[in-house]
Amino acid sequence: MNGLQFDPARPLDLIAVGRLCIDLNANETGRPMEETLTFTKYVGGSPANIVIGAARLGMHTGFIGKIADDQMGRFIRTYLQQNGIDDSQVSVDRTGAVTGLAFTEIRSPQECSILMYRDHVADLLLSAEEISEDYIRKSKALLISGTALAQSPSREAVFLALEFARKHNVTIFFDLDYRPYTWKSAAETAVYYNLAAEKCDCIIGTREEFNMMENLYNVTGADDEATSNRWFSHQAKLVVIKHGGSGSISYTADGKKHRSGIFPANVLKTFGAGDSYASAFIHNLMQGGGVSEAMRRGSASASIVISRHSCSDAMPTLDELEAFLLSNEEIGSGAE
Amino acid sequence: MNGLQFDPARPLDLIAVGRLCIDLNANETGRPMEETLTFTKYVGGSPANIVIGAARLGMHTGFIGKIADDQMGRFIRTYLQQNGIDDSQVSVDRTGAVTGLAFTEIRSPQECSILMYRDHVADLLLSAEEISEDYIRKSKALLISGTALAQSPSREAVFLALEFARKHNVTIFFDLDYRPYTWKSAAETAVYYNLAAEKCDCIIGTREEFNMMENLYNVTGADDEATSNRWFSHQAKLVVIKHGGSGSISYTADGKKHRSGIFPANVLKTFGAGDSYASAFIHNLMQGGGVSEAMRRGSASASIVISRHSCSDAMPTLDELEAFLLSNEEIGSGAE
Amino acid sequence: MNGLQFDPARPLDLIAVGRLCIDLNANETGRPMEETLTFTKYVGGSPANIVIGAARLGMHTGFIGKIADDQMGRFIRTYLQQNGIDDSQVSVDRTGAVTGLAFTEIRSPQECSILMYRDHVADLLLSAEEISEDYIRKSKALLISGTALAQSPSREAVFLALEFARKHNVTIFFDLDYRPYTWKSAAETAVYYNLAAEKCDCIIGTREEFNMMENLYNVTGADDEATSNRWFSHQAKLVVIKHGGSGSISYTADGKKHRSGIFPANVLKTFGAGDSYASAFIHNLMQGGGVSEAMRRGSASASIVISRHSCSDAMPTLDELEAFLLSNEEIGSGAE
Amino acid sequence: MNGLQFDPARPLDLIAVGRLCIDLNANETGRPMEETLTFTKYVGGSPANIVIGAARLGMHTGFIGKIADDQMGRFIRTYLQQNGIDDSQVSVDRTGAVTGLAFTEIRSPQECSILMYRDHVADLLLSAEEISEDYIRKSKALLISGTALAQSPSREAVFLALEFARKHNVTIFFDLDYRPYTWKSAAETAVYYNLAAEKCDCIIGTREEFNMMENLYNVTGADDEATSNRWFSHQAKLVVIKHGGSGSISYTADGKKHRSGIFPANVLKTFGAGDSYASAFIHNLMQGGGVSEAMRRGSASASIVISRHSCSDAMPTLDELEAFLLSNEEIGSGAE
Repeated sequence: MNGLQFDPARPLDLIAVGRLCIDLNANETGRPMEETLTFTKYVGGSPANIVIGAARLGMHTGFIGKIADDQMGRFIRTYLQQNGIDDSQVSVDRTGAVTGLAFTEIRSPQECSILMYRDHVADLLLSAEEISEDYIRKSKALLISGTALAQSPSREAVFLALEFARKHNVTIFFDLDYRPYTWKSAAETAVYYNLAAEKCDCIIGTREEFNMMENLYNVTGADDEATSNRWFSHQAKLVVIKHGGSGSISYTADGKKHRSGIFPANVLKTFGAGDSYASAFIHNLMQGGGVSEAMRRGSASASIVISRHSCSDAMPTLDELEAFLLSNEEIGSGAE
Repeated sequence: MNGLQFDPARPLDLIAVGRLCIDLNANETGRPMEETLTFTKYVGGSPANIVIGAARLGMHTGFIGKIADDQMGRFIRTYLQQNGIDDSQVSVDRTGAVTGLAFTEIRSPQECSILMYRDHVADLLLSAEEISEDYIRKSKALLISGTALAQSPSREAVFLALEFARKHNVTIFFDLDYRPYTWKSAAETAVYYNLAAEKCDCIIGTREEFNMMENLYNVTGADDEATSNRWFSHQAKLVVIKHGGSGSISYTADGKKHRSGIFPANVLKTFGAGDSYASAFIHNLMQGGGVSEAMRRGSASASIVISRHSCSDAMPTLDELEAFLLSNEEIGSGAE
Repeated sequence: MNGLQFDPARPLDLIAVGRLCIDLNANETGRPMEETLTFTKYVGGSPANIVIGAARLGMHTGFIGKIADDQMGRFIRTYLQQNGIDDSQVSVDRTGAVTGLAFTEIRSPQECSILMYRDHVADLLLSAEEISEDYIRKSKALLISGTALAQSPSREAVFLALEFARKHNVTIFFDLDYRPYTWKSAAETAVYYNLAAEKCDCIIGTREEFNMMENLYNVTGADDEATSNRWFSHQAKLVVIKHGGSGSISYTADGKKHRSGIFPANVLKTFGAGDSYASAFIHNLMQGGGVSEAMRRGSASASIVISRHSCSDAMPTLDELEAFLLSNEEIGSGAE
Repeated sequence: MNGLQFDPARPLDLIAVGRLCIDLNANETGRPMEETLTFTKYVGGSPANIVIGAARLGMHTGFIGKIADDQMGRFIRTYLQQNGIDDSQVSVDRTGAVTGLAFTEIRSPQECSILMYRDHVADLLLSAEEISEDYIRKSKALLISGTALAQSPSREAVFLALEFARKHNVTIFFDLDYRPYTWKSAAETAVYYNLAAEKCDCIIGTREEFNMMENLYNVTGADDEATSNRWFSHQAKLVVIKHGGSGSISYTADGKKHRSGIFPANVLKTFGAGDSYASAFIHNLMQGGGVSEAMRRGSASASIVISRHSCSDAMPTLDELEAFLLSNEEIGSGAE
């Protein structure tokens, strides 16, 4: 038992709040971006990618966010609609904000980097007044992402969404997704990550992200079990800690832990691995799968996306995921 | 029983974090400030006043704050030292910030107003890195005040102090002290007030301040009992709700409520009533007094301060307070 | 001949644009401000002081500025009216700005310092849209002061006022009045001081202020004559360079120079010396006096003001100035 | 005679100060940007384009500017070097600024628009301290562009460059290039445009740009001749006023005017027309050509660039320009 509950009577399976932006992926790969001449445009942003992945797998999804009043913003809305994601809570900024951009550089599968445009972006202007209690209580689960906590008023909007979710027993997933830009200091980052994590049911992040949350509080050298127990003393029932190449470990409040393996992949770039993992993991948990099976499907989905050019548009359908699982073998997973 | 615990082994009784500023009180009263020509300088700021009051009553006190590197800042430090308040955690801003000012206008005892200077003030520049876990765990109780939540990095410093206080069983008092200036929006205010209040043991505020905290969450028309119960579901054991002229009501987690009365006073101005109430109330609670007696002493202290020219310098000593109680009669208090 | 022309047909003699603020002068002098307990409130700001001085001497004056919508702002307006200064061009900020403050510390006549409050002040919010071409062309002379150039939109308002003044042959006096606070960098300061000075007929400043204007342009080690010639190549006809205790030297475009002496004074503080000098100097020049006589009267006025507690309220009337000149002897002046 | 002088002893022909940025031009044209999926990257920015054009025509050129410390910035530097433009005065921002972006939308030759990213851009962080007097005095001519005046510290850097250019008889070209974004108000824009234009020898802009400069000063309904005369009373010797489809008119201080015609073109987009005009116009003037011939070559260069995909990379070499002039006929030009 993973301890997470999902109310079957709710019309929406998963909604997310946070970043909607544009990826501009280098078409000429295997070289520094200085030598790249053309780029292809995709919808991006971690929570957007996760919801797109979830929608591809057949879930009823929605997004709470804010887009710029320009061509990039309208491209994002259209793409959400084409993927069957409810966009009724995606508002339009009227103050001249722009759409966040992420230019990707793909020197090799191991050397990928991102050049971000995050000044005056529309997604961080989502305000608390735009959070609908009615909408949140119609959903089984809410996904939040750390980047939406980076600035006001988006930060307050997320805290209000968390409050409404707790009030109405909406299960909360927190994908830590820590990105240093837009945050002013390590202390600011840690404070709001911790305040948010206290209210979440399932927390997913890398070991480094959990360390960042613990350092300010003089919690040093915590192992995964101590980290998980810290959150079990608040609301969490499930904590996933990623260790890069060594795979991920999940802890449940009943003291069990599960290790995920990896699937072989023809890697083009590493971007999107975490988002595709999260979408398939959440999908399977909500279908009633066990933690081990959810992790296996997360790993499979990640393998598919890292072999493709985009993060969002590369998300597999349920058929694609099933086909992949039939023809590929996971290495090194299991309950412990 | 009020449910609050104070560890007798701790060397400090009460420490506060937050605003240290200057009051400039009109010497020529009974007229608009346009016609005032001279002002007298006092140390001010709600948490500063409360700690000064507590020190006058004989408590071992300390302050965590930040002062400007100028004559006003040095005046504040000297005044704290003269009152026996530990200033080892009062740091000095080196970025050119100024000391917050409050010019008071006293048209009549009923018509008092304040002209605030709160731009680029040193007290709001207290940072999380300046919060000492060691210092907090040496104290029986911590007092926080809402104004310190109004801006970064002071806001994060307070949240970190709250975390250390919880970790070490330091009892937390929250004097809401809501002041609209320096806050950007009603939503921002409500979010951080609520996040802080969740972690506090005793919350003191006016009915209007509690309403401000509830409106954003669509909690409308809450009565005092519902408000108190909301906080009892978090960490609070004692909630004091002030109703202006009608007195205050305290709720304890065991379902009891107490109403405080008032003492007749020769009112000069209304400023400082809440701070003097809080200092005598906290002092008596920490001496082991019951809630009713603590409230009675709070009311008496308030009556003394509103008959004097300043807020801080007017705080009574224990002898003055006892003498006042011997010769004055409270009206309209009692448990219900 | 000083080369300055004043159109006798204009109804206003002298108008100023710029800073209107409040001085809070220590009542207990001869000590550090930390030990000062009371302060007296006066109208302040260099151009305000100069116009008040000019009004006291009998000139028809006006002010173009912006005040806060509070008790301090209303005090300033009333004081201008009481001194017969036209306040029709003094607008009221509606955005919550405050009135600039200057707390003065008078340790001894030689050790005076100022603690400034210049964040978010109303005077720097004067905007170009509030500059009336009609008003400017009704005046014989316009006075500007460097502090009004420190920030937008006040900076643009001054440049527009200069343009209207040039267009309508209004003689322009520039009192450099450089104050480091509110300026972002030495380069920013120098650029706008120079752009403004190019358009002025008479420039008054200290040797240090002229150096500040020349350093960025790699003009180093300029003597007073080179400095004056630099401005004569633009619009200036008269340049006054102050050398502190050694007195001031005026240069006229026809190659003459005049040295001003000093009058003995019972010095209370040094604040206000420059402003009182400027008001009597300008008054006498506009009455048709020669440069030497104007300088003599400037020095006399300065001696009067530095022996009194305020800067603005201390400005002498014409009778007071005449009486002082009859009973006091200047030392060390003359044409060279 | 156009009145402009160029010192033949100077090693550099033309240097520019201002914007260096990136154009991302839609590859799929003839549609809204929402439907564009890929973009091609070019160096952009009006002064960059003009200098690239001048370099292609064989001039010795240089650039004073600032680039971001990222792949986009390094791409710009390499491109300048490849075109033989001296980049010794192109500094690198170390504060985390980004490269300005211009996404172009090409719906049809007549419906082109730009989506700008101008928040926190490196080019506007060029500071006065980075302007070398030595470098400027080595050049025959300096080109400035209005966008560099939009914010501090770039604004001050331009004013300092203007001062050095005047001091050393470097002929100054001002391409008004007004773009509303990044400016705070119409008044701010007009003030700094006018202050800069006063110091320039040749001013090139559209009728609307000149109107913008005149409105604040209550100069309404000026015709081209009045506009030109306004600038001839300052430093200008040559003023070019563009009237869109009706062609351009040049005025010289000796009272002559010249009308430029147009060349037929196979128009892909309208971007880059002004920049290519300016580069060929300046090139020919500096070669000793008359105003009419310089305008004819400007028009020819514009016709070449608007038929190509980029602005910068499309600039013709001298051979291409000569070949175009041999095979195409101008319509409707001449002195009047």
